[in-house]
Amino acid sequence: MAHKLIADHLVDGEMTPGHEVALSIDQTLTQDATGTLVMQELEALGLRRARTEVSVQYVDHNLLQADEKNAEDHEFLRTAAQRYGVWYSKPGNGVSHPTHMQRFGIPGKSMVGSDSHTCAAGSLGMLAIGVGGLEVAMAIAGEPLRIRMPEIWGIHLTGQLPPWVSAKDVILEMLRRHSVKGGVNRIIEYHGPGLADLTAMDRHVIANMGAELGATTTVFPSDEAVRDFLRAEGREHDFTELAADPDAQYDLTDEIDLSNLQPLIAKPSAPDNVVPVSEVSGREVSQTVVGSSANPGLRDFAVVANMLRGRSTNDAVSVDINPTSREILQDLARTGAVADLIGAGARIHQSGCMGCIGMGQAPAVGQNSLRTFPRNFPGRSGTPEDSVWLCSPETAAASALTGTITDPRALAEKLELTDPKPQLPEQASINTSMLLAPPEEDEALTIEPVKGPNISALPEFTPPPRQLELTVLLKTGDNVSTDEISPAGAQALPLRSNIPALAEFTFTRIDPEYPRRAQQHGDGHAVVGGDNYGQGSSREHAAITPRHLGLQLVVAKSYARIHWQNLINFGILPLEFIDPADYDDLTQGEVLQLQRLHENLHQQTELTLHNTTRGRDYRVRHRLSPRQVRAVLAGGLIPMLAENTTGSG
Amino acid sequence: MAHKLIADHLVDGEMTPGHEVALSIDQTLTQDATGTLVMQELEALGLRRARTEVSVQYVDHNLLQADEKNAEDHEFLRTAAQRYGVWYSKPGNGVSHPTHMQRFGIPGKSMVGSDSHTCAAGSLGMLAIGVGGLEVAMAIAGEPLRIRMPEIWGIHLTGQLPPWVSAKDVILEMLRRHSVKGGVNRIIEYHGPGLADLTAMDRHVIANMGAELGATTTVFPSDEAVRDFLRAEGREHDFTELAADPDAQYDLTDEIDLSNLQPLIAKPSAPDNVVPVSEVSGREVSQTVVGSSANPGLRDFAVVANMLRGRSTNDAVSVDINPTSREILQDLARTGAVADLIGAGARIHQSGCMGCIGMGQAPAVGQNSLRTFPRNFPGRSGTPEDSVWLCSPETAAASALTGTITDPRALAEKLELTDPKPQLPEQASINTSMLLAPPEEDEALTIEPVKGPNISALPEFTPPPRQLELTVLLKTGDNVSTDEISPAGAQALPLRSNIPALAEFTFTRIDPEYPRRAQQHGDGHAVVGGDNYGQGSSREHAAITPRHLGLQLVVAKSYARIHWQNLINFGILPLEFIDPADYDDLTQGEVLQLQRLHENLHQQTELTLHNTTRGRDYRVRHRLSPRQVRAVLAGGLIPMLAENTTGSG
Repeated sequence: MAHKLIADHLVDGEMTPGHEVALSIDQTLTQDATGTLVMQELEALGLRRARTEVSVQYVDHNLLQADEKNAEDHEFLRTAAQRYGVWYSKPGNGVSHPTHMQRFGIPGKSMVGSDSHTCAAGSLGMLAIGVGGLEVAMAIAGEPLRIRMPEIWGIHLTGQLPPWVSAKDVILEMLRRHSVKGGVNRIIEYHGPGLADLTAMDRHVIANMGAELGATTTVFPSDEAVRDFLRAEGREHDFTELAADPDAQYDLTDEIDLSNLQPLIAKPSAPDNVVPVSEVSGREVSQTVVGSSANPGLRDFAVVANMLRGRSTNDAVSVDINPTSREILQDLARTGAVADLIGAGARIHQSGCMGCIGMGQAPAVGQNSLRTFPRNFPGRSGTPEDSVWLCSPETAAASALTGTITDPRALAEKLELTDPKPQLPEQASINTSMLLAPPEEDEALTIEPVKGPNISALPEFTPPPRQLELTVLLKTGDNVSTDEISPAGAQALPLRSNIPALAEFTFTRIDPEYPRRAQQHGDGHAVVGGDNYGQGSSREHAAITPRHLGLQLVVAKSYARIHWQNLINFGILPLEFIDPADYDDLTQGEVLQLQRLHENLHQQTELTLHNTTRGRDYRVRHRLSPRQVRAVLAGGLIPMLAENTTGSG
Repeated sequence: MAHKLIADHLVDGEMTPGHEVALSIDQTLTQDATGTLVMQELEALGLRRARTEVSVQYVDHNLLQADEKNAEDHEFLRTAAQRYGVWYSKPGNGVSHPTHMQRFGIPGKSMVGSDSHTCAAGSLGMLAIGVGGLEVAMAIAGEPLRIRMPEIWGIHLTGQLPPWVSAKDVILEMLRRHSVKGGVNRIIEYHGPGLADLTAMDRHVIANMGAELGATTTVFPSDEAVRDFLRAEGREHDFTELAADPDAQYDLTDEIDLSNLQPLIAKPSAPDNVVPVSEVSGREVSQTVVGSSANPGLRDFAVVANMLRGRSTNDAVSVDINPTSREILQDLARTGAVADLIGAGARIHQSGCMGCIGMGQAPAVGQNSLRTFPRNFPGRSGTPEDSVWLCSPETAAASALTGTITDPRALAEKLELTDPKPQLPEQASINTSMLLAPPEEDEALTIEPVKGPNISALPEFTPPPRQLELTVLLKTGDNVSTDEISPAGAQALPLRSNIPALAEFTFTRIDPEYPRRAQQHGDGHAVVGGDNYGQGSSREHAAITPRHLGLQLVVAKSYARIHWQNLINFGILPLEFIDPADYDDLTQGEVLQLQRLHENLHQQTELTLHNTTRGRDYRVRHRLSPRQVRAVLAGGLIPMLAENTTGSG
């Protein structure tokens, strides 16, 4: 199935794992926290009008509007989207992934999005890949996406989910087995008879959090469940049946018997820190939050409403509900679920990402917050030393009622609850009054995007010198996330369109002194990383802001895919230790030297990095394609395109 | 009517305007932005248990939780309320004023609240007065409230509101006629046949914004409209009929013929900057917000839902709905209004004050935001150089549809709309699952309030020296609001329980250098103010934070009531120019001297203030009662009470 999707969009390259392939892109998705840069990149590329079938700019991250910055970003995005022929989804319309699935997702189409959870669209049989903003900008300009051909990982599903166990527990089981690195350079393809038990929105839950496994994307077949979903959305005409051949071969395989699953929970502060809920039950809870693109469906809220109906949530718990889209909130209101939730003491928030991206709902220090979110990286909630757990809506609702971490099966037994499987309406509420279609080209070209004071220009990046001689200004551990490199949260997110101001937050979760040290150092510098460096979101800010502060080289044990590409896109050279033990040899403050940079990068993939402080040599590797080498040596993709004067517009 | 209410609660003093009277207090209301200090004050007073009939701690201001501070405040408030025998209304339950009216308001009772809009309860025939937190703490401890007896201002209402004109237009008309100083030292009492056209919640709108007129409070009779309201809330047993005697005399009078009113709007950036909507129609609008305690009723939202039903709001407008209470949101969901609002493109926010207190929803710089809020002081929205207008729900909804400021009558004519008077349910949704009753005394005494790192101790204040010699570190204009002295907003509000951190924001809207200048100056200092100094909210932070920075003396042309009392409560001497022209003579940096402070304050109300820099004398006046003189000379009310070892517990 994944093979077929790639073959259908192959423009260039060989479909052998590890080789670079170029894929044509049908749709794009951007959100506001990454989209302001994408719009500025479209401007830098001189684009006339989007060349994709559908491109949509969502506003779902920066919704609090604590000061004027968010509102100015929204105005810029609205007018820029209209200028470039892009749909605009107004603030409050909903989280990009479920909203896109509802209104635009089409089986068999390819999509890139400047959000790591773009892969959620795999639930409809799309090939949907989260990438950096610049690659989305290039896709909007009609350029193919270039990636290394991943391995295809077939997950055979059998059995049926037991009562009180749901899709979230399936993906938590994957994370328990395979860790946050388990999916790196892989496409996860679910197949088998167990699929019959999963609706399209259940599959969204599983596909969405493929990002947490580090996977390139996740793919589900387009079958009757997808037809049902599109029918409810009034778009049955967009349905095509798509499935793997019966004799399909996978590069790797695994199997999950859904019948054997139980409620699972990821402990603080990593998505793969997964244990059975029963193992940690009884601990006090101060907050539960239901919502986010990881549990976005009407079902996920309706289950909670069913469990809470006529009951009172615990006095000491803040029970927060984040509707993921306006359509879902409308359906919740229509079915009475909103009234049930309010009646039980829930706080209903506006539709959007909210606490999932640290935009509000921050818990108290050290107090347990149970969330149906995809991520619990340290501090991502907005609270330093937070204690965030990831679980299903069933587990969150059970815990909201008791005030302690509670296995929903135990609560069900105690309260004699029946399985709260909700009846969903045959037809979803469809309403597009917050979704603005792009104007006709003639009109679009007359529109001048409105740039408030918070919209900075893209910084200009210069090519690296012939020889690198760089001081190591930071050494990090394993699994450093982009949240630690360039934090989200209510303080930093409003500055996503203002690179110099945002740069002041770079790496501050790891070392508050890094920005000042880099600025004082002046010249370029290097950072040393461990395994899975740059996991998490797609934000290219995690490359641009350290680059703005002088970062030219990262040496790590291994990389997360999107961040690795973002480093290249913005002219930072990512190298890997061939002997991971060399990582231990390096210390902050030492100087690394890389000679004959241009010749070496072009001619060989293995290089020698010289530690001039200690007189030691390290063998390192780069995995750059010739085109990527050119990008790094040009100072990044934008100067490279300018050199070539390709002019994608 | 007001006379009767005062007489019923008179403990001490003479009911002659200007004389100090002491009133027994039946109920208190605190909200979170002021309540954390009140709880600390209860602790400082050594209180065993609340002595009022009902005291309620609401959480409605700090709901965004951009970091851990809000959640820590909530936990402190919850546990402290339980410790002291105070009801606790959880975050998300609703704005204090409408929620209190729904669940606790009783005709004929007296109430103080640490929120300037406490006066809204006058809609039920209560004597409800907004005061500083310390006076609420003392009321909780059973002490009477001491105020200067105000004049009673009878407003005779006749006629009936025309279609598309509502209660908000009545109070805007009052502000148009009488300005933000019009109600100072007055109680506004509405009477006459026009009352028949106003529901209890309509009266809430009018009573609430009595605060904007500077009034001590507003009083309505308790009549059939109040009975209807209490019946819908399931509390008809709390009803008592109360009205003025037929031959009642007022100290001052005015008359409004409701039939002659038209839709009105307050232009940026003062609540009394009122003009007819038709005079400013056509200007572009980027945001409309419906909600807040100034338009809190189900009717206010239902009207908007009726106007928006089946229509699409303008593409360029963010249409924000702030439900004021959970009960109202539940009723809106029950009646289908939520679905209508969502369908038209509205953003539904959590129940609470939200943008009214600058907690989110900040507009872009200079772009017009139409709000049904009570206040539009400069920057209160969270945006410097904001452009905020105050209007009725009808005007906001009409403008949301057109994208320009629109008189709802003009839109009605164009679209052939009928007057959108909604049918309200006979019974309101009543649900108390977010309202925690205080535990029994034995249990309460075992509770230890949880103080997270954001809960600072109350600063200790020392008595002033025998002679004041103070540099003027700031000179302000007229109508300086407490928002300008100690701003609200998403940055500052989370620090309301942390005085040293909050002090960094003091006066920064007027002069960003003030906090640094005061800290560098070290010794005590003075501030010179114009007319109506300290208008707006009840926040005692506007006294405590400048006091923390060394403020000992304010000389102004005149004062807003609550802030004047707060200055005294925290040991800052408020003086008035006898000749307002002397204000012009003074400049920042000059030194003011006040000799024989203790003797002079006790013996005379007129004093000589010597400008040592320029060798000039100014005649000034203080209006302090002997008790208030003692408070100032003790360094504030808390040290005074400690001196007396009254021990109110």
